[in-house]
Amino acid sequence: MPLVHISMRHGKSDAYRKAIIGNIHRAMHETFDVPEDNGFMTLTEHDATNFRFSASYLGIARTEDVVFIQITANDTRTAEQKKALFQRIAQLLSEHPGLRPEDVFVNLIEVRKENWSLGNGLAQYA
Amino acid sequence: MPLVHISMRHGKSDAYRKAIIGNIHRAMHETFDVPEDNGFMTLTEHDATNFRFSASYLGIARTEDVVFIQITANDTRTAEQKKALFQRIAQLLSEHPGLRPEDVFVNLIEVRKENWSLGNGLAQYA
Amino acid sequence: MPLVHISMRHGKSDAYRKAIIGNIHRAMHETFDVPEDNGFMTLTEHDATNFRFSASYLGIARTEDVVFIQITANDTRTAEQKKALFQRIAQLLSEHPGLRPEDVFVNLIEVRKENWSLGNGLAQYA
Repeated sequence: MPLVHISMRHGKSDAYRKAIIGNIHRAMHETFDVPEDNGFMTLTEHDATNFRFSASYLGIARTEDVVFIQITANDTRTAEQKKALFQRIAQLLSEHPGLRPEDVFVNLIEVRKENWSLGNGLAQYA
Repeated sequence: MPLVHISMRHGKSDAYRKAIIGNIHRAMHETFDVPEDNGFMTLTEHDATNFRFSASYLGIARTEDVVFIQITANDTRTAEQKKALFQRIAQLLSEHPGLRPEDVFVNLIEVRKENWSLGNGLAQYA
Repeated sequence: MPLVHISMRHGKSDAYRKAIIGNIHRAMHETFDVPEDNGFMTLTEHDATNFRFSASYLGIARTEDVVFIQITANDTRTAEQKKALFQRIAQLLSEHPGLRPEDVFVNLIEVRKENWSLGNGLAQYA
């Protein structure tokens, strides 16, 4: 854990998507106590029909570059840690690959420690 | 928020999938206090091997048109609101694009308000 | 319910992916009180850029065959049932299609019974 699912529009390069994945991981490492070598993520690309976003909700001007980041993690972080994670993800993605901070959408799903098996059929965190 | 992931079989038209996305959003707006301009959704299409459903569980006759709708939202709704949402989604999708109500499968994941960043690295609901 | 999302790299045969889906369902049936005819699952295949995993986290040697299994289910199971589920999934997948137990990654998201509609716009478990 965490397990991260990223959704975005089609059409970006491998380097661009690698930067997104790498920097989300770096932000989790820096703010969420996630070990350096603990990274499990998928990225799914969508055409326009299969990807809907609001271009203005809450007064935030989003573009087709918007990225949805859904992170499932243990329910052990404080509200302050969550704020730090969101801020750091937006900051790092704005540096590389150059996403506008308005286009960084993050959702966190929290589960119990006993809800993970990271291999070998064992519940390593239970 | 909410963030909605829709899964279905390949082979439907753009108009059909747009109707699904639009009517799920309308149902959330009408029953779940979701603002008109707050819609964040992805849709993923699968071939037969990568999409399994039960054709009879609970005595409900499902077909290959079945759609899985997974909605992540704040944990602020009552059980009555959830029932209203499920009913309204099935009703609107049966009108357009014409899904059988038996083929509408919905799951709701609830999270805390502090678990969202809708842009700019901030936790807007915290 | 449950609703299962499986993520893995591209390149495996239909038979291989069918074995994964079928054996995850069998493990849920045997350990999680899931009826035989209650199976709702999607599988998404990714290229290397869109799929990141740790090859060593917690001392577990994973390969490109690693499979992420995310199960959303009712919050009615004990920690012991969860352990039994993880163990049985790894065991059955190692038998068929022959996954290394190190390559079986499972995460469980728990929700309330009232959070499901399995068709017809009704909340069948509420």
